[in-house]
Amino acid sequence: MKHFTSVDDVESMPSLLDLAKKIKQSPFDYKHIGQDKTLGLLFFNPSLRTRLSSQKAAYNLGMNVIVMNINQDGWQIEFEDGAIMNQGKQEHIVEAAQVISQYCDIIGVRTFASLDNKKEDYGEQWLNKFKQHATVPIISLESATLHPLQSFADWITIDELAIPNPKVVLSWAPHPRALPQAVSNSFSQWMLAAGVDLTITHPRGFELDRQFTQGASIEYDQEKALQDADIVYVKNWASYENYGQVGQDLDHWMIDSDKMKRTNQAKFMHCLPVRRNVVVTDDVLDSDNSIVMQQADNRTYSAQTILYKLLTSEI
Amino acid sequence: MKHFTSVDDVESMPSLLDLAKKIKQSPFDYKHIGQDKTLGLLFFNPSLRTRLSSQKAAYNLGMNVIVMNINQDGWQIEFEDGAIMNQGKQEHIVEAAQVISQYCDIIGVRTFASLDNKKEDYGEQWLNKFKQHATVPIISLESATLHPLQSFADWITIDELAIPNPKVVLSWAPHPRALPQAVSNSFSQWMLAAGVDLTITHPRGFELDRQFTQGASIEYDQEKALQDADIVYVKNWASYENYGQVGQDLDHWMIDSDKMKRTNQAKFMHCLPVRRNVVVTDDVLDSDNSIVMQQADNRTYSAQTILYKLLTSEI
Amino acid sequence: MKHFTSVDDVESMPSLLDLAKKIKQSPFDYKHIGQDKTLGLLFFNPSLRTRLSSQKAAYNLGMNVIVMNINQDGWQIEFEDGAIMNQGKQEHIVEAAQVISQYCDIIGVRTFASLDNKKEDYGEQWLNKFKQHATVPIISLESATLHPLQSFADWITIDELAIPNPKVVLSWAPHPRALPQAVSNSFSQWMLAAGVDLTITHPRGFELDRQFTQGASIEYDQEKALQDADIVYVKNWASYENYGQVGQDLDHWMIDSDKMKRTNQAKFMHCLPVRRNVVVTDDVLDSDNSIVMQQADNRTYSAQTILYKLLTSEI
Repeated sequence: MKHFTSVDDVESMPSLLDLAKKIKQSPFDYKHIGQDKTLGLLFFNPSLRTRLSSQKAAYNLGMNVIVMNINQDGWQIEFEDGAIMNQGKQEHIVEAAQVISQYCDIIGVRTFASLDNKKEDYGEQWLNKFKQHATVPIISLESATLHPLQSFADWITIDELAIPNPKVVLSWAPHPRALPQAVSNSFSQWMLAAGVDLTITHPRGFELDRQFTQGASIEYDQEKALQDADIVYVKNWASYENYGQVGQDLDHWMIDSDKMKRTNQAKFMHCLPVRRNVVVTDDVLDSDNSIVMQQADNRTYSAQTILYKLLTSEI
Repeated sequence: MKHFTSVDDVESMPSLLDLAKKIKQSPFDYKHIGQDKTLGLLFFNPSLRTRLSSQKAAYNLGMNVIVMNINQDGWQIEFEDGAIMNQGKQEHIVEAAQVISQYCDIIGVRTFASLDNKKEDYGEQWLNKFKQHATVPIISLESATLHPLQSFADWITIDELAIPNPKVVLSWAPHPRALPQAVSNSFSQWMLAAGVDLTITHPRGFELDRQFTQGASIEYDQEKALQDADIVYVKNWASYENYGQVGQDLDHWMIDSDKMKRTNQAKFMHCLPVRRNVVVTDDVLDSDNSIVMQQADNRTYSAQTILYKLLTSEI
Repeated sequence: MKHFTSVDDVESMPSLLDLAKKIKQSPFDYKHIGQDKTLGLLFFNPSLRTRLSSQKAAYNLGMNVIVMNINQDGWQIEFEDGAIMNQGKQEHIVEAAQVISQYCDIIGVRTFASLDNKKEDYGEQWLNKFKQHATVPIISLESATLHPLQSFADWITIDELAIPNPKVVLSWAPHPRALPQAVSNSFSQWMLAAGVDLTITHPRGFELDRQFTQGASIEYDQEKALQDADIVYVKNWASYENYGQVGQDLDHWMIDSDKMKRTNQAKFMHCLPVRRNVVVTDDVLDSDNSIVMQQADNRTYSAQTILYKLLTSEI
């Protein structure tokens, strides 16, 4: 593994999952792996789970960690090739990525979608510039279009349920603000790569980019989609087609206990943070079937497994 | 010890003090205690001493540390149960506290009083929500009404003076802004729990909440209060009764060398940061009798002792 | 070495360089030196290279690190002696410096020039207050007038080129904003202390403070200065004479490949961050003769060497 920015960087899905299980069972057994190694975490955007779980994962491996809110702590980064830098941006990504590579053995980068410019977002302009110019492995801490550390944790969580051939439903949900498609794209991509039976349900106009959903069933009727579901993964995203737009009069897409009754006593999943009583009602989120904490817990092992792979691949 | 949010969490005052002395004498002797353990420090408010001394204390015990300015680095936290989260707050305390518990073995939280809403502040709404939902010990890094790590350090400092039955005076002082009562409440609470002879002096209308001062002498005449004092602890606080209000024409409450002459060559204490020449004159603060640096130094051992207790209680 | 705030703190230039080479060759061989020691890094200003390389250097020596964006994370610092602190500043440097000394074994401080007040800037008001009141060694992470960690790294880099008696040219370059003279002052000071042949070229009115350049050749004709240069170090700075002023119609001072052709196939140096196509053209910066990455890399060893010296001098 050279970088970790999508499921496509995974050489073998089964062996990655096995490694995660081994690490979760005994997280402190690999502290020699990260000795004298430094993880740099660069945040262009807010983060709680990713920020903390990545640090915890690195500490578990004996690594040192440097965290930087890059725009506040450092300089404004220019990403355009050939830019005449006479405006507000002080440092070019060409230098930034190379320089940070000299102080860090692995670099994690968090760069959300702008939701303004589909082409730039889906070109993963920022993340790709880091990959292009860094001389060490890059880990996506959520990029414009994907969130692979989250999806890997989700997959570990689903595997732990040990449900034979589960029916997994990814359901769109309402939200007061426009959100990227990254978690949903990535979840779909990982489920399909893992051979999981996936149904995606959302209002018309909220179709995800087909490159990530090819192989999933698309069902516009939420109640029909939820029928017999073993796992319901809930997430809002803004429109891909009408890029960055939120819908209107879609509050009825909120997940509540009545909807959950249509399922096969499904487990409820969400990547967090979640808007209570907007995306999902309190009673569903607080029910025994909610496994959002197990998901969050697995963020540590997802990150630790990836760090392990990148550190040992380097050798 | 399950949490550390007030003196009420202390099982035995003498044995806590003994442990602090032992740790101060040889701070690096306990590095195995914190091995593979992570301290999370969450700041909703600015902090210098608490921020640095908590990290230092954790390092002394061999712990890893994760620091987060939670509102800037992460998401805005909703504290209301049942909230319909369709406004600016992205994450509920229910999830935040549980999630952070999965990455950290102990969580420190800094949440100042709003000074707007007495009931919410004195209900310790935020801190209590953390205690309620976290699954690991919570340390107060100063809450709405108390600052126990400071008070414990103050107590260590007073003990080191080895003055037999000292007369301790807590004096209100002027300040350009409204400040919480936390340091004063907490100092009074600890002094009384330790059986120290405490006099509190302040202008009328600045009475502290009686639950923290029951047992102290209240004296409205500052000069009279200072008579024969062995230790003068100075601190501003806004009114508890007229909640959050500052007084007028109270500049004469500033501590100066003339006032200190009325004392029994008293030591001068303050938690810092201190407004020079507003709260206290330069000459008093810079005098040999000022022990503010000894107080600040003891913040490390106060924090290290509490971390030690929480880590060993877990076993 | 008691502090490290300029080349004047260096006892022996040759032995410092030797130590840097030894450390660079085997950076993890000295991890016992920093055991149980804590480096505090205080930033009043943005920083990328200094922030990351100082942390990396400390980790290489086995130190713990505490990083603080002091104005955001803590309190506003008052630097005036005798101030009546009834305005926005909550903490005086007298307390701040002493307090931080109690939690950190070495303190790094980053304080840029205001460019408003020449006397205050060149008096190094802030840095000197830290030196005066701290009770542990202070490292400059760039002060109002100097940037010695950068200059030491630059010197290591030039030494590695192994050019016999190189002609080094420090050239002023255009920039959209007023920048401090710190990097240029410091580079000149170190080159002259190391006995390097230094020519400084800049537009009239941009003369640096003579205390740092005494011994260098000053040449107002950039093209003439570049003639036969082995190394071209490029940097913008605002006027020292008309303090803080930027010039007009000086874009022709940008370094491009035509200008580099006048040199003796000179290496191109810059401290970074650099405004591409304003200070220097892409083709020069991206050419094989550009050694800006080698400079940035040496920041780690420059910092590690200084930390080593301060830690071992303490004993």
